[in-house]
Amino acid sequence: MWNIGIIGATGYTGIVLISSLLTHPDLKITLLTSNTYKGKKISDVFPALKGIFENILEPTGEKHAGKCDVYFLCLPHGSSMETAKKLYDGKAIIIDLSADFRFEDIAAYEKAYVPHTAQELIPHAVFGLPELYRDKIKDAHLIGNPGCYPTSAILALYPFLKEHMLIDDVFIDSKSGVSGAGREAKTGSLFCEVSEGFKAYNVGVHRHEPEIQKEVKKFSDTKILFVPHLVPMNRGILTTIYGKLKKPITTGDALAICKETYRNEPFVRVLDEGLYPDTRFVRYSNYCDVGMKVFDDGRIVLISAIDNLVKGASGQAVQNMNIALGLDETKGLKYIPQYP
Amino acid sequence: MWNIGIIGATGYTGIVLISSLLTHPDLKITLLTSNTYKGKKISDVFPALKGIFENILEPTGEKHAGKCDVYFLCLPHGSSMETAKKLYDGKAIIIDLSADFRFEDIAAYEKAYVPHTAQELIPHAVFGLPELYRDKIKDAHLIGNPGCYPTSAILALYPFLKEHMLIDDVFIDSKSGVSGAGREAKTGSLFCEVSEGFKAYNVGVHRHEPEIQKEVKKFSDTKILFVPHLVPMNRGILTTIYGKLKKPITTGDALAICKETYRNEPFVRVLDEGLYPDTRFVRYSNYCDVGMKVFDDGRIVLISAIDNLVKGASGQAVQNMNIALGLDETKGLKYIPQYP
Amino acid sequence: MWNIGIIGATGYTGIVLISSLLTHPDLKITLLTSNTYKGKKISDVFPALKGIFENILEPTGEKHAGKCDVYFLCLPHGSSMETAKKLYDGKAIIIDLSADFRFEDIAAYEKAYVPHTAQELIPHAVFGLPELYRDKIKDAHLIGNPGCYPTSAILALYPFLKEHMLIDDVFIDSKSGVSGAGREAKTGSLFCEVSEGFKAYNVGVHRHEPEIQKEVKKFSDTKILFVPHLVPMNRGILTTIYGKLKKPITTGDALAICKETYRNEPFVRVLDEGLYPDTRFVRYSNYCDVGMKVFDDGRIVLISAIDNLVKGASGQAVQNMNIALGLDETKGLKYIPQYP
Amino acid sequence: MWNIGIIGATGYTGIVLISSLLTHPDLKITLLTSNTYKGKKISDVFPALKGIFENILEPTGEKHAGKCDVYFLCLPHGSSMETAKKLYDGKAIIIDLSADFRFEDIAAYEKAYVPHTAQELIPHAVFGLPELYRDKIKDAHLIGNPGCYPTSAILALYPFLKEHMLIDDVFIDSKSGVSGAGREAKTGSLFCEVSEGFKAYNVGVHRHEPEIQKEVKKFSDTKILFVPHLVPMNRGILTTIYGKLKKPITTGDALAICKETYRNEPFVRVLDEGLYPDTRFVRYSNYCDVGMKVFDDGRIVLISAIDNLVKGASGQAVQNMNIALGLDETKGLKYIPQYP
Repeated sequence: MWNIGIIGATGYTGIVLISSLLTHPDLKITLLTSNTYKGKKISDVFPALKGIFENILEPTGEKHAGKCDVYFLCLPHGSSMETAKKLYDGKAIIIDLSADFRFEDIAAYEKAYVPHTAQELIPHAVFGLPELYRDKIKDAHLIGNPGCYPTSAILALYPFLKEHMLIDDVFIDSKSGVSGAGREAKTGSLFCEVSEGFKAYNVGVHRHEPEIQKEVKKFSDTKILFVPHLVPMNRGILTTIYGKLKKPITTGDALAICKETYRNEPFVRVLDEGLYPDTRFVRYSNYCDVGMKVFDDGRIVLISAIDNLVKGASGQAVQNMNIALGLDETKGLKYIPQYP
Repeated sequence: MWNIGIIGATGYTGIVLISSLLTHPDLKITLLTSNTYKGKKISDVFPALKGIFENILEPTGEKHAGKCDVYFLCLPHGSSMETAKKLYDGKAIIIDLSADFRFEDIAAYEKAYVPHTAQELIPHAVFGLPELYRDKIKDAHLIGNPGCYPTSAILALYPFLKEHMLIDDVFIDSKSGVSGAGREAKTGSLFCEVSEGFKAYNVGVHRHEPEIQKEVKKFSDTKILFVPHLVPMNRGILTTIYGKLKKPITTGDALAICKETYRNEPFVRVLDEGLYPDTRFVRYSNYCDVGMKVFDDGRIVLISAIDNLVKGASGQAVQNMNIALGLDETKGLKYIPQYP
Repeated sequence: MWNIGIIGATGYTGIVLISSLLTHPDLKITLLTSNTYKGKKISDVFPALKGIFENILEPTGEKHAGKCDVYFLCLPHGSSMETAKKLYDGKAIIIDLSADFRFEDIAAYEKAYVPHTAQELIPHAVFGLPELYRDKIKDAHLIGNPGCYPTSAILALYPFLKEHMLIDDVFIDSKSGVSGAGREAKTGSLFCEVSEGFKAYNVGVHRHEPEIQKEVKKFSDTKILFVPHLVPMNRGILTTIYGKLKKPITTGDALAICKETYRNEPFVRVLDEGLYPDTRFVRYSNYCDVGMKVFDDGRIVLISAIDNLVKGASGQAVQNMNIALGLDETKGLKYIPQYP
Repeated sequence: MWNIGIIGATGYTGIVLISSLLTHPDLKITLLTSNTYKGKKISDVFPALKGIFENILEPTGEKHAGKCDVYFLCLPHGSSMETAKKLYDGKAIIIDLSADFRFEDIAAYEKAYVPHTAQELIPHAVFGLPELYRDKIKDAHLIGNPGCYPTSAILALYPFLKEHMLIDDVFIDSKSGVSGAGREAKTGSLFCEVSEGFKAYNVGVHRHEPEIQKEVKKFSDTKILFVPHLVPMNRGILTTIYGKLKKPITTGDALAICKETYRNEPFVRVLDEGLYPDTRFVRYSNYCDVGMKVFDDGRIVLISAIDNLVKGASGQAVQNMNIALGLDETKGLKYIPQYP
């Protein structure tokens, strides 16, 4: 029985982590923290948990090192690295859901975010995308859980990057539900500012662009351009990617490459020709659905769908934990997509 | 290992039943039927199930008697009774999600619905509301699964009906998500006819009114008036009930009565004073949350929330199955409410 | 050409007022204020206005007396009365959209809100519900614009109150879109906290209850109980009222009374028997639609629908202005309900 | 006073046309037709119109030639061309909202749609995009009103096409509200099949692709690829276009070109640098908002927003009518975008 701590448990990634971990047979949530709600029961913050899980929230700032086998950090970037410094001991597994340990290149991180104050930990950190880095994750004690948009984009691109099949620039057009903006009270996230509207934001300047770019760069010189959009729905990311293949192949061949790549992956579903992902069909699950179409001249459209809070955040974090603990990767992640 | 059949599996109650039953450790879904989609895989109809459950749909009309231990009938009223006649043998357990076996009084049924053509089965049928009729359900082989609105209304009223505490008329104001209208292509259920609007419908003539009334009548002469409304959301029913108590008591006393009534119920959560149900906190779960406020002069407001497709339909059907099979009542129903 | 000032122009009532007034042929908006956005163009705050109306926002706190013929106060209660004191001169017409001048009885106001610091103005104030108080509004220089819920409830009840036809308690079950909560950044108004959910709030303690009650009291001893609910949509209020008539009459007779009452009203539409209001059919317009059903034993269900930001706030304010200025009441209010 | 007929008035384009035309000072709607609802009042179909406009619907199939000065055809492709044949006399102005008269090249039309049975009329037809073809529209008696997606895409591309600044392929990623699918009862348009989900559809095979392509071709060999997506909202299209400029210029320069192109256009608003369109800011209006960003290497992102039922359909049809009748282009189109 592993002891699990969630640092910063009262945002959307916190509640989704809890929902997942409570169904996991091999562990126990023994630590929940929140500065805003400390002293309250988690079920006071999230009444959905009433009668199911009513642990008390402890202050985030206290000493929590040595208490747990696994810590999930659900904190903003910047404060996450500070907490990681306090908790990292090479024994506990720390899974950071912020951006602080996603970048191998400090300069790239600092350009997009803030000065990094825990640089000594970066060599220990693994980018927690299991489909690409499972072997490294197995031995990791510090895992930088990928961003939601990067997860959706990289999983769609990877089979073709790996095979060096892409030429020219790639355009990544992503659409996210509102929970991606977090649970903070901001005017832009109000119901009346989101419902019945659709917009692009952070055009070409979103911080997930360098995160995607650094992964692409490992395979290719392809330059990406990333434009995120806000969808009036709670959950889900659909990413539509436009690119060009070096040599034209059929859609069937492209799908075959993709299916082969993800043959043993429990959470990637490659759809058949003519079918395309819908966020509705992955909702509340850890699946990433991928579909595509190739045109005669080699242009390709890749489409992927994830639940931004599950495969795009907390579910992937649990998957990483399972790998690092040597457990069956699907434990705590058996939720069937809920529809309608 | 029990063999389970779902007759008419391609509506919303069908997919929710499947989602629930697939997590149940003691059974196997061995029969799925649909006239519209026969020959297709269920995962073609509901791509959410791809890679998880891909059974072939058989025609509804064929002979399916003797194949399964439990049959769930997800058919329209009228055709459900005909199918029940073919399947009923006193051994298999038939759980009918239509209205056909909810009424003990044939005249009441026929007034609200259609002529009943399987009247010989009515004496065998049990109204499948476990919190009121668990003992009868244990021995039943034909269970009339309650309507969604009646479930939400009766569970809120029952503690006070049972104690004969209500006087005067009771007004039941219910609000349902759109999935309550089913998956049939109707203009009134189109996104653009529902979104960004709110209305009452079937004012004082909804067929769930006699279903609620017949249960109330078992305890009291109280006359109910029922007005349903349509909420622009997928799932959930919130029911607000206005009535008067014979003697004024405090809200605390009223809650205590309610908590005592449901003390051992796994799926009814009575909220503390000052808290009221929100459909968001029961979404995708089998819970019914109940809250209330009593005024100095004895007026009382009772509020309940359910997921109309779970406790209001398929989840309650699984609960009934568990009771009838002598299993732990919560098996297959451990979904934590999903939020946000 | 009248000069119009909007004090506190950057909330939802502000933008809706502007949308209305810009279509009014006899006036000019010459003053817009906002403390938060002072110095900016209104079209920077509401890009919908780009190229249409780009006036600069002045600070709310400055001296604005004597500048305009009509002032609309879109401020929170408490600060509204302070501003009214500075602007009131018996010449300009002040229309206050807060609660500060809705109550004739200071004690009732103070019980629900805060100590009243402009009591000397109360004798000058008129409750701005044109269908009841048009004659007083004609001569008013200080108008307390009614609350959104009270507008919807009182217009439905009035024909029967006026005729002293109601007995017993009345239960008022209202459902409002989210814009009723204003444009302030609050967790409870976030998209993910509202979408796909439905709840009651402020059960029996909402401050609009005394506002409705004081109007009811003018006709009858009927005690009301008011429960508001939050609908996942931007705009609209549907109010369902449950009561009992002294003598049973037919629905047709009840409708006739209602139609007679509102015969000359430009903004109340009484629906025919069997039809019920839908907020969708009044959206963006100043209409209040009313429908009803009476039962054999005298129980009655009254249903009304308004756009909470138009007839429930800014549209009604414009209607009051037109009356007070002696203009055609419908000027600036000719918006046809927008659908879908 | 012009007499106006709307053939097929009971879909979403019909109601939006009516809403627009009722505010137009120079005309009268004298003919409304519908086969489904013939004999009913239009206000029975759209209760929003109650008390405002209650004309009777005549059968679509009858002879209506010679009755009106302007006919709007709101019919499906195929039946629209048949009706046009009956009405066309070189005097009345026929504005067809279907695709039947949008293509100069019959083969291109027939490849995407059906055999064309009114080919003799094609030489008389003008593609009704005023910003490109105003002069031709002035003299037209048959106007093929553009598709919603093409309107949004072409208006964003046109300034750069006209200047021959684009090289390479262009990727057009469009997102539409659900009203684009019309008012027909289809499973895929049900609330529960759309709400809380997001998907691409008709990837690379949508019939609006050749409509966009044929306009692009008039200026350039650029090949486009078009992927539409479905947004869970009623109205609006946001189109994000990815391309490359022959020579890198600054975003400011690109905006200047765009502003110059649309300098005198009443319905195109080019946003300032750093601002991007949101469908929310054009909702219910005839505006097309355009924004953009250019990157150092010449990659460009163009974004446009329209209300699909207004500038994307009925509003543009009214604009075309005004031009063809020699009226002020903005008459009947003065709706301010409604927000929230």
